[in-house]
Amino acid sequence: MRFRVHVSLKASVLDPQGQTIRSALNGQGHHAIADVRQGKYFDIEMAPGTGREQARAEVDLIARDVLANPVIEDFRVEELG
Amino acid sequence: MRFRVHVSLKASVLDPQGQTIRSALNGQGHHAIADVRQGKYFDIEMAPGTGREQARAEVDLIARDVLANPVIEDFRVEELG
Repeated sequence: MRFRVHVSLKASVLDPQGQTIRSALNGQGHHAIADVRQGKYFDIEMAPGTGREQARAEVDLIARDVLANPVIEDFRVEELG
Repeated sequence: MRFRVHVSLKASVLDPQGQTIRSALNGQGHHAIADVRQGKYFDIEMAPGTGREQARAEVDLIARDVLANPVIEDFRVEELG
């Protein structure tokens, strides 16, 4: 069973890395790029035999406590099957 | 118009960062975590008035040439609308 945890900065938090990428792209002639924001994701494979409910609960816990910083980041857990 | 470019290491490439996260999670008692691989994504906002076909072509170009390293990384472009 696999899950993907998406972690992104909250919309209210500045993303200097994204701004730098946008600025570099504009400088390379890509003037149509108005904004870039960067995020990350974690593909998590659970050991065989883990129950679906238990796996989901564990991934939610890990996302909240370890992978994301809830002060400045949002996260979303997606089940990949 | 918004696009999301997903960039991940090719399956054949080792992901030491993901392995470190897995190891740390196992050490914290999350023994059901069998594997972790990390990826990143870029949310790209195009300037208003950019044609859909042109925007898509430009994002594909940027993904291939700038955002991903095709030697070790795969990318996928998703249209967010």
